[in-house]
Amino acid sequence: MGLVVQKYGGSSVADAEGIKRVAKRIVEAKKNGHQVVVVVSAMGDTTDELIDLAEQVSPMPAGREFDMLLTAGERISMALLAMAIKNLGHEAQSFTGSQAGVITDAVHGKARIIDVTPGRIQQSVDSGNIAIVAGFQGVSQDSKDITTLGRGGSDTTAVALAAALNAEVCEIYTDVDGVFTADPRVVKKARKIDWISFEDMLELASSGSKVLLHRCVEYARRYNIPIHVRSSFSGLQGTWVSNEPQGDQPMEQAIISGVAHDTSEAKVTVVGVPDKPGEAATIFRAIADAEINIDMVVQNVSAASTGLTDISFTLPKTEGRKAVEALERTKERVGFDSLRYDDQIAKISLVGAGMKTNPGVTATFFEALSNAGVNIELISTSEIRISVVTRADDVNEAVRAVHSAFGLDSENDEAVVYGGTGR
Amino acid sequence: MGLVVQKYGGSSVADAEGIKRVAKRIVEAKKNGHQVVVVVSAMGDTTDELIDLAEQVSPMPAGREFDMLLTAGERISMALLAMAIKNLGHEAQSFTGSQAGVITDAVHGKARIIDVTPGRIQQSVDSGNIAIVAGFQGVSQDSKDITTLGRGGSDTTAVALAAALNAEVCEIYTDVDGVFTADPRVVKKARKIDWISFEDMLELASSGSKVLLHRCVEYARRYNIPIHVRSSFSGLQGTWVSNEPQGDQPMEQAIISGVAHDTSEAKVTVVGVPDKPGEAATIFRAIADAEINIDMVVQNVSAASTGLTDISFTLPKTEGRKAVEALERTKERVGFDSLRYDDQIAKISLVGAGMKTNPGVTATFFEALSNAGVNIELISTSEIRISVVTRADDVNEAVRAVHSAFGLDSENDEAVVYGGTGR
Repeated sequence: MGLVVQKYGGSSVADAEGIKRVAKRIVEAKKNGHQVVVVVSAMGDTTDELIDLAEQVSPMPAGREFDMLLTAGERISMALLAMAIKNLGHEAQSFTGSQAGVITDAVHGKARIIDVTPGRIQQSVDSGNIAIVAGFQGVSQDSKDITTLGRGGSDTTAVALAAALNAEVCEIYTDVDGVFTADPRVVKKARKIDWISFEDMLELASSGSKVLLHRCVEYARRYNIPIHVRSSFSGLQGTWVSNEPQGDQPMEQAIISGVAHDTSEAKVTVVGVPDKPGEAATIFRAIADAEINIDMVVQNVSAASTGLTDISFTLPKTEGRKAVEALERTKERVGFDSLRYDDQIAKISLVGAGMKTNPGVTATFFEALSNAGVNIELISTSEIRISVVTRADDVNEAVRAVHSAFGLDSENDEAVVYGGTGR
Repeated sequence: MGLVVQKYGGSSVADAEGIKRVAKRIVEAKKNGHQVVVVVSAMGDTTDELIDLAEQVSPMPAGREFDMLLTAGERISMALLAMAIKNLGHEAQSFTGSQAGVITDAVHGKARIIDVTPGRIQQSVDSGNIAIVAGFQGVSQDSKDITTLGRGGSDTTAVALAAALNAEVCEIYTDVDGVFTADPRVVKKARKIDWISFEDMLELASSGSKVLLHRCVEYARRYNIPIHVRSSFSGLQGTWVSNEPQGDQPMEQAIISGVAHDTSEAKVTVVGVPDKPGEAATIFRAIADAEINIDMVVQNVSAASTGLTDISFTLPKTEGRKAVEALERTKERVGFDSLRYDDQIAKISLVGAGMKTNPGVTATFFEALSNAGVNIELISTSEIRISVVTRADDVNEAVRAVHSAFGLDSENDEAVVYGGTGR
């Protein structure tokens, strides 16, 4: 049997009991004959406590020092985990991101992995050890400074190591049983997905599903590393994310993978934009210069009578103020009438590669929303996704209606605690 | 002006307020024109909390992992300190022991420094930064594993860096005003020492004075680095430890530097040892093989009538059980009568290079103890020290009597809070 990379999030190692429970699970994999490399996040609230300390000493902590601070968290959890494993009679060694060969660029707080040179890790597992690696961190190529990878960093560390070590699978352990057809907090009858393709998972991740982040799935797809998302609390099989189904999974992909929703966005509408070349470019250059990532962009044909059009886009609520200010500064140059800002919106997305070849999906989707009395404000589609923007108040009703309309409801209610995945 | 190394212990950086206070003091040194390298310990109770976590996951944590765990503490304090300094408008960079070039052997938990290659630190201060270095930690020469230096490790880091960087002085900041002529908790009239030679400081440190550890002073003496021990809370001059007095310090050394006491030791007496060659060697080989460090050793001439003698020695109380067990195993071979173990003792030491040339010091010392009604159980002397063992109950009375007899009492009571020095 080959090498397995396992990743445990902060909620799985929140305290000494959690660490001991995780240690047992790791040892099981080793006993089953695998070489095991473990990537671990900081314990529970450690990161928040460190951030709190930083804010007490400085309102604007420098990136280099902030990264040095935060990486202490994984150092603690990984050392404790190695101790707990050794206490079970198995050999374990812990490694920082730098020791594990996670080489990044120098963008502190959201560094990107440039290369992984896992020589020490390979040597450690070849000598019979279980290797424990700090997630979320690396070392910059030129300056040799400690960096952090930003949100979802530990998942990305795990997938990157799995790729560099030619692992059979990257297991992402979290506090939920896998990826669901909808958020189980909203849809009681949501079902756990047994297998989902990289493409559908990418769409779900960009549409508000929080179990796996886009970045980690993208990395896994590029290197074709199967991901198995599962609970560190139960022993159940979770969700496999890969190019092809694994083992006894259904060979044919479901038409629809799931319904995702997102209430973290706001909508900006630029009203009365002269319909001539270059106006949209000016608007979105202003947004880009303010370093704001936008999501959906919608422009309708202009009313022939006025020669004016409206451009709407969505963006994270946290960037709303900055975006409006940036646009106000272009008002004269672009010559638009006014700006509307609306943060009481929700985005509902239906994802499934099957919709490409199944006519009527779009119609069923809109009918479901209509029957539920949900008004649609914006529509945007890709080959394997339809997204709409609705009022925030309507979101739960809308998700349940769509989930039901596509036959995704399970027979019986599942009781699942659904939470964050740490980092 | 040259380069200054400053070391701050855990009590000086116990919380965000402490870190900000220390940052201001560091910036002052920089403003005065010095290049500044700072060595910092873990915040207040961090180390104890990490040890507590380790004990929860494993009764016998492995050294390599335990070191990895503990070094997270300095990572936190050094990053926060760098942020606090930057917040005051000065440039600062933090460095782990490994980044700072602190190369050690591979004895986890009490590694010894083999070499210091402070290239990155020198570069950092030459570029105008204040360099913040994690105390207490290094990286092993061969295996590149993270190591800790054991007790007093941060002081040793500071002195070692000061030596490698050719610093003018190594300032050790702590929560007391300096080295005193006796423990101020015992002797209210104890005086702060303005200057003390390396030799006398070494004797005080081995005799129970806790402000500086023997190891750090020994390192400073070898490389002739003046140490200035002072309070991080007051702005006062502290105690200089060096070969020669500095600046306006008294050129002639006092006859007596101070009185130290130690209640952490126990006494073992091997009763009825046959007075023939090799017996003492067998006894102390057994102790050495058990890796126990002993302190005083006393043997009297044997009683001519019996040909038997008694051998007594002192050792840390924590090693008492192990020592007695090791000796019991040699009983038959050595042929001694019995063992006596006594942990209700105290050691009182008088230290001063001046006693070499001043007759009567020993007599005055014993008279003072006699007048105070203190019985002497063991005596041991060096050229610049006299030590006696007494009952533990007598220790405070004995220290006060000796301190007074040698004219060390100050005119007025000083109110000083006297505590540990962190690590």
